[in-house]
Amino acid sequence: MAAQALDALVVTSLANVLYLTNFDGSSAIAVVTAERVLFITDFRYLTTMSDLQGSPQSCPGLELITVGESYDETLAATLATSAYRRVGFEAAHVSFSRHAWLTKKVTGTTSNGVTPDGTVQLIPTAGIVERARVRKDHYELEILREAGDRLSAVARSLFPVIRSGMTERELAMTIDWRIREAGFEKPAFETIVASGPQAALPHARPSGRTLTEGDLVVLDFGGVYDSYCVDLTRTVSIGLASRRARDVYTAVRDAQAKAIAAVGPGASRYGIDAAARESLTRAGMGEAFGHGTGHGLGIEVHEDPRIVRRRADADTGDEAIAPGMVFTIEPGAYFPGWGGVRIEDDVVVTEDGAQLLTHVTTDLLEL
Amino acid sequence: MAAQALDALVVTSLANVLYLTNFDGSSAIAVVTAERVLFITDFRYLTTMSDLQGSPQSCPGLELITVGESYDETLAATLATSAYRRVGFEAAHVSFSRHAWLTKKVTGTTSNGVTPDGTVQLIPTAGIVERARVRKDHYELEILREAGDRLSAVARSLFPVIRSGMTERELAMTIDWRIREAGFEKPAFETIVASGPQAALPHARPSGRTLTEGDLVVLDFGGVYDSYCVDLTRTVSIGLASRRARDVYTAVRDAQAKAIAAVGPGASRYGIDAAARESLTRAGMGEAFGHGTGHGLGIEVHEDPRIVRRRADADTGDEAIAPGMVFTIEPGAYFPGWGGVRIEDDVVVTEDGAQLLTHVTTDLLEL
Repeated sequence: MAAQALDALVVTSLANVLYLTNFDGSSAIAVVTAERVLFITDFRYLTTMSDLQGSPQSCPGLELITVGESYDETLAATLATSAYRRVGFEAAHVSFSRHAWLTKKVTGTTSNGVTPDGTVQLIPTAGIVERARVRKDHYELEILREAGDRLSAVARSLFPVIRSGMTERELAMTIDWRIREAGFEKPAFETIVASGPQAALPHARPSGRTLTEGDLVVLDFGGVYDSYCVDLTRTVSIGLASRRARDVYTAVRDAQAKAIAAVGPGASRYGIDAAARESLTRAGMGEAFGHGTGHGLGIEVHEDPRIVRRRADADTGDEAIAPGMVFTIEPGAYFPGWGGVRIEDDVVVTEDGAQLLTHVTTDLLEL
Repeated sequence: MAAQALDALVVTSLANVLYLTNFDGSSAIAVVTAERVLFITDFRYLTTMSDLQGSPQSCPGLELITVGESYDETLAATLATSAYRRVGFEAAHVSFSRHAWLTKKVTGTTSNGVTPDGTVQLIPTAGIVERARVRKDHYELEILREAGDRLSAVARSLFPVIRSGMTERELAMTIDWRIREAGFEKPAFETIVASGPQAALPHARPSGRTLTEGDLVVLDFGGVYDSYCVDLTRTVSIGLASRRARDVYTAVRDAQAKAIAAVGPGASRYGIDAAARESLTRAGMGEAFGHGTGHGLGIEVHEDPRIVRRRADADTGDEAIAPGMVFTIEPGAYFPGWGGVRIEDDVVVTEDGAQLLTHVTTDLLEL
């Protein structure tokens, strides 16, 4: 904010609002200044906020403003009656139409607090709060470690119940049940159970298909624990795996191990992706790996850093991995009509290397 | 599109993409013209799309474009090499920064297909697809009726299992399980189970609180069936209800009946809200009803029409309710520290009145 000489920053991304204030409801705007946080929310959350402000999780300097006609009317009125002149907004989290409406409403306003010759200026900003979120602090890492332990226990609890004859949907329901039973607030995304040829679709929806002897089954699920997301994938075989299934599995497992070995402070996020990709390419499966190697985890299940292939026009400013970053390592290989394999763990970058947050065997289980 | 003389419309809202093409994945952009639909998606969804295009649910005129470096690079390249000059975009569904990037990328481009003296112009549009979505056709209404029947059956199945001693979270898990068991793809939103004083929070999260004799418990849940959302709330008493609980319940139930009676073709959406609000005000509980009376249902769980209080600056262009519209009627009364009541059903506007899509008793159940 200082670098852009901002008097205030309007935070509209709910993940950023949560990060700054601990509010985890579905509607709020935070106007952040050097001294205070003007927190705009509606009737539904007033009790929640006053409870929060009376707790150890309270946000210092928070002043509660109740929404009147609408959020944006209230935001506009708040800015117009403030002394803030250079007001940043989150350009990735404000729509074109919302920005146009706000601009019309707040610029040119000369109500109290705005000097007659000046008006509020809305300044686009990018990633101010996100850059703080990318390296997790001790408190966040404790939550993520606990979440990783709990998600691993969910995974291990599933293996004894997976059997030929159950449908993908039944298994997905069981996974979601156990995620909540393990103390997660909710699944972090729609659980994937993809069996046989369905496993060739990296984002398959659980269907009525019955798990059948000889299938590979991709299980990809996550949970939100104390507002933080973890994410895990294992691929299992129903009965004995074919020679081809073993070969694909081994290639993906090797690629995952190579990528994990490449993680450490100062490593390039493109380099970590390349470690997985080159390993699969050597196994003749480079073309079968169509997605990135991983994504950051935190308040959002997909956040920075992105562990992906280097693009021709890549900005290398955010290439280096640093201690406190938490992300997935999840290479896969997919063959339309046949099936696929994906193996995913979560890692935290430490001062001298990396640690896994998830602890589940990567041996090919034949269930 | 004709009214704005658009050559093409870039559809970035995923709900709008689903409405137009039947694609229900998590990433796609549709460029719609009078003759065709240029459909941009990535590697993960190519098999899904070719399956869809071979099915009776295929989208006429669809041409598949695979994402290269990124979605927006591919969109920009598609526009730059097209003959489209006036290209609309959905101003509510494109961020300020995305618009700025696209503008820089596509305007000033003079590659093949763009006449030397012209460039692509990006024209903001509002609600073009949403206006088509607001009145459901026969096909959509059949889905919504089936979904309403199934959600009602879920509600009725819960009453025998609700008992003193279970936690809010246990009951919420049971509800989510039964929603899926009833054939829904997933819950339409985070299920609310709010007991005792928690019921005063319209958007409470299920907690570890134990349901206790004398509690009122608000149960608010929904499901997505064949991509369409339905939504239902009932408030029940654990054991005998107090006099005050009965009074509040009766007032909310009366308000809901008044609002439902006000629904019909040509009715004002503000008038329907006023019917509920005036009824609660007559019972001395107008102040306890802090939210709107209802919201539209369809591909999104909150869409138009909004059944809300008339605002001072309301545009009356979309005031009238019309046949085919589907929305909730869900007044409530909330008393911080004590608790609350909400009763919600889904209605469809017919040629000569309205029909309920949900069928569950509104008697106060003492369980």
